[in-house]
Amino acid sequence: MSKEKLMEGFFNPESIAVVGASDNPKKAGYIIVHNLIQKGFQRPVYPVNHNVNEVQGIKAYPLLSQIPEDVELVVLITPAAMIHSVMDDLEKRMEEKGDVKALVCAAADYGETKTEEGINRQNRLLETCNRYGIRVLGPNCIGVINNLNGVDTTFVDPGIPPSDFKMQSGISIVSQSGSIATSIMFMGASRPLPVKFNKFVSLGNMTDVDFIDILEYYERDDSTRVVGIYMEGYPKGKMLIEIMGRIARKKPVVILKVGRGVKGAKAANSHTGSLAGTDAVYDAAFKQYGIIRVAAFRELIDTLLTLERMPMANGRNFYVLSQTGGFGIFCTDLLEELQFVNMPKISEDTCNILKEQMPVMSTIDEPEGYSDITVSASEEQHAQALTAVLKDDKVDGVFFLTVTPTFLQQERLGHCLAEAYNSLEAKYKKPAFICIMAGDYVKKSRCVLEEEGLCSFDTPNEAVVAAKHLIWYAEYLKAKEVRS
Amino acid sequence: MSKEKLMEGFFNPESIAVVGASDNPKKAGYIIVHNLIQKGFQRPVYPVNHNVNEVQGIKAYPLLSQIPEDVELVVLITPAAMIHSVMDDLEKRMEEKGDVKALVCAAADYGETKTEEGINRQNRLLETCNRYGIRVLGPNCIGVINNLNGVDTTFVDPGIPPSDFKMQSGISIVSQSGSIATSIMFMGASRPLPVKFNKFVSLGNMTDVDFIDILEYYERDDSTRVVGIYMEGYPKGKMLIEIMGRIARKKPVVILKVGRGVKGAKAANSHTGSLAGTDAVYDAAFKQYGIIRVAAFRELIDTLLTLERMPMANGRNFYVLSQTGGFGIFCTDLLEELQFVNMPKISEDTCNILKEQMPVMSTIDEPEGYSDITVSASEEQHAQALTAVLKDDKVDGVFFLTVTPTFLQQERLGHCLAEAYNSLEAKYKKPAFICIMAGDYVKKSRCVLEEEGLCSFDTPNEAVVAAKHLIWYAEYLKAKEVRS
Repeated sequence: MSKEKLMEGFFNPESIAVVGASDNPKKAGYIIVHNLIQKGFQRPVYPVNHNVNEVQGIKAYPLLSQIPEDVELVVLITPAAMIHSVMDDLEKRMEEKGDVKALVCAAADYGETKTEEGINRQNRLLETCNRYGIRVLGPNCIGVINNLNGVDTTFVDPGIPPSDFKMQSGISIVSQSGSIATSIMFMGASRPLPVKFNKFVSLGNMTDVDFIDILEYYERDDSTRVVGIYMEGYPKGKMLIEIMGRIARKKPVVILKVGRGVKGAKAANSHTGSLAGTDAVYDAAFKQYGIIRVAAFRELIDTLLTLERMPMANGRNFYVLSQTGGFGIFCTDLLEELQFVNMPKISEDTCNILKEQMPVMSTIDEPEGYSDITVSASEEQHAQALTAVLKDDKVDGVFFLTVTPTFLQQERLGHCLAEAYNSLEAKYKKPAFICIMAGDYVKKSRCVLEEEGLCSFDTPNEAVVAAKHLIWYAEYLKAKEVRS
Repeated sequence: MSKEKLMEGFFNPESIAVVGASDNPKKAGYIIVHNLIQKGFQRPVYPVNHNVNEVQGIKAYPLLSQIPEDVELVVLITPAAMIHSVMDDLEKRMEEKGDVKALVCAAADYGETKTEEGINRQNRLLETCNRYGIRVLGPNCIGVINNLNGVDTTFVDPGIPPSDFKMQSGISIVSQSGSIATSIMFMGASRPLPVKFNKFVSLGNMTDVDFIDILEYYERDDSTRVVGIYMEGYPKGKMLIEIMGRIARKKPVVILKVGRGVKGAKAANSHTGSLAGTDAVYDAAFKQYGIIRVAAFRELIDTLLTLERMPMANGRNFYVLSQTGGFGIFCTDLLEELQFVNMPKISEDTCNILKEQMPVMSTIDEPEGYSDITVSASEEQHAQALTAVLKDDKVDGVFFLTVTPTFLQQERLGHCLAEAYNSLEAKYKKPAFICIMAGDYVKKSRCVLEEEGLCSFDTPNEAVVAAKHLIWYAEYLKAKEVRS
C-alpha cells in the first residue's frame, strides 16, 4: 500500500485499538476512549487492557493480538518501558493478520531524552512498524483529531463540551508540540463562535510521520481550506518549505515557528530533539514562498480565521469606520505606524450618502479615509455605513469599530451587519474587519456575526495584524499569477 | 470652598439629582438611575422629569429648583439644545439654596462640534457653573464611577452583573473618551477574576474639570494605588506631565496615549476637539518622568494589574519555568528578542532540588535560565518548582508557563501555586508572571490564583510585555532614590 494511502489509517480508520485503555478517569488511557465515544466515532473501538473485561462499557482484550476483528489504527498509551513487549505482540498480530495500517505512540521517554534507553525504544518501535509497513505518529505526541468523523486519539481532557461547537471549520492544524496543539485547541474553542478545527495533528518526535506527510495530506484534503502550523525545527528544511510553498499557491499556509534566537533554539532541541535552523533563513524562505508567518498564538488563530472567511484584498485602500472616536484614532495610529495600507478619500457620492444616513453629529471622511458615525448610530445605521463604504470603488476593505451595545440590541447588531454584508453584490464583498470591543460582554453580537460567515476581532490590534497578513498573501498570489 | 473640596461632589456626593431621568429603558436617563440603584448608592437620588411623578419607583421632581432637599451632584442627561433652560433653572436653585457642588454633563453636541451653537451651549454651561462655584465634568462624557460607594453617573448598559465582581481593586482610571472608558470597563470585567476598578472618570470636552483635577484627586486618594490613563491630547501638556511625574514617584501611572501620527492627531481633534501634540515630545517626557506608556488595551489592563499586585523587581534576572516545551521556547524567543532580561543560571542547590522533586523527564536549567518540568508535573510539583526558583538568589523574577489541566485539578492548581507563593518569606516574594494557556477553559484556575493576590496571563506575550513595564518602572524608582 502507498505511504499516502496508509495515512488514511490515521484520519479515516475502519477501527481503532487503544492499547493501555483504562477505566480510571485520571489516566490518559481513559480519556482516549472517552473522547472517541464523546466525539461520536462510529466505527469499532477495541480497548486493550490485561486486567479488565471491559472499559467504559466496551469489551476489552488482554492483548492486541487477541482482537479477532480487523484493526486499522493502534493507539499506544502504555508507558515507554513496555514498548518491547507491545511490539512483540504487534509483530505476532501482523504475522497472523497483517491488518494494522497506522500507529499513534502517545507516551514520552523515547528518542527526545537522548538517552540510550530512549533511543533504543524509539528504534524498536520504528523497526517493527517499518517491517510491516505501518506508519507511526510520535512518540511523544497527542496524536490525531479528525472532527469530520470523530477520530480523536488525544488524551486531552474533554473539557470542551461538544455542544460548544456550532460550526465546522476548514482550518487544519499540525503542531510539533502536543501542549501547544492543546492550547491552540482550547484558545480556538474560547472564541465567541468556538472554532472546531477540521483536523488536528501533534507530531512529537517524528520518528516516521512528519510535517511533510501531514502537509501533503492536508494538501489533498478538500475539506481543509487553510493550514496552520506550529513548528520548532525540521531536519529537511528546504524540502519542507518547497512543499509548504506548493500548498500556499492553493490554500493559505500560516506558520508560527519558534526557536528564533540562540537560546530558544537550544530549548527546542531539548524539547523535541529538533534543530531549529537559522531563523533568518527560514524567515526569508517563508516570504519567498508565500507562507504567512505569525508571531503569537492569538495572531495565529485570528489570521487563520481571516484567511478562511474573507475574500482576498484587491488593493491596499482600507477605510476606517468607527462608532467611537477613541478607537478610530487608535486604529488610525496603528495603520499610520505599520504603513501597509492607505486610508482612501471616498467619493462625494459616498460622503453624501453617509451625511444623509448617519447621525447628525457624525464626522464624515475627516481626516481622509476615516468616518466617525458616533455612539448614537443605530443598528441600521451601522449596517448602512458598512454598505456605503464597501460599495465605494476607492475602497478595498474596511476596519469597522464599535464598542458596546448600550443602546443597541446585541443580536440585532450582529444580524444587521451580517445581512448588509451578505446581501452585497460579489464585487463589493471586500475584506471587513469588524471589531466589537467590550470583552466577553459582546460575545452574543460577535457570535451572530461569525455564524453568518464574517470575522470579528477583540480590538483594532488583532484586526490590523490579520489584515496585514491577508493583504500580503493576496499580493503574493497576484504576483505569482502575473509571473506564471 | 476649595476646588479640591468641590471634587468630592463627584466622588462622594451627599445626594444626586438626575436631570432627564426616565422610565424608558432605552433612554440614557433610565440607565443612570438604574445604575445608581443597582450599584447600591446609599444616599438620596432625585430624578428630575417634567412628565412623571416617579422614576423607577423614586419620587421625581419637574424641575431641579423644586427639589426641597440639598443636592450636591447634578447629572445632566437632557439633550444639548435644552441647556439654556436647564441653566436658568440651576441659577434659580443656586440663588435660593446654593447647594450644588458638582455637575456632570453627559450629552454631546457642545464645543466639540466647533459650531457656533455648540460653542455657545458650552459657554453657557460653564458661565453658570463658574458663577456659582460648581465644578463641571464634560460635556460629551459618561461621567464618574466610584465603586467604593456606588456612585455611577454613566449611561453605560449595566450588562455586568454586580455579582461578577468578587474583589475591589486599587486601580483608578481616567479616560478622555467615554467609549474607550466603557470598553476598558468591559474588558476588565471579562478577565478571569473580573476587575472592579476603584474609580472611573470619562472627561469628554474638559470645559472645566480636566486631567489635572482628576489626577490630583487620585494622587490624594489612598484607595487608588495605581492610575490608568487614556489620553488623546491636552493643551497644558507640560504641566500635566509634571503632575503625572509627581504621582509616578508615589504610585504607578500607566498611560495609553493616541494621536501618535499625523492622521491620528487630526482624528483626535475632531473627536474631543483636543490637540494631540507632537508624539515624540510626549514620549520623551513620559520616559523622563517615570510614566509607563502602553500601546494596546489588553496591555493597559495587564500592566495595571501587574503594577497593583506584584512587588517591584530587584533586577533583570528572570527565570523561565515551563510545564510545556513549546511555550517555554516561545517565551525564551520573546525574551531574547526584547533583551530586557537576562535568563540566569540557577545555583547547584536549586538544580538539585528540582532534579529531586520534578518528574524524571524534566530538563533542568538547560539552556541556562530555563527548566521544563514536563506535562506530567503534578499540582504540587508546579508549586515546588515555583518555590525553588524564587528562593534562588540569582533569580529576580519568574515566568511560569503551564497549559491545560488535563491531569490536574484546576482549582487545586491555582491553590497550590498561590499557597506556595504566599507562604514564601517576604524577600522571596519576587514578581511571578504565571501563564495558564487554554483560553476560557482555565478560567477557574486563574480565578483562584487572582483571588489569592497573584496575577495570571493568557500567553507569554502579555506576561513579557507587562514584565518589561514593571522592570522599567522599578529601575526608574531606584534611580530616583539614588539621585534624591
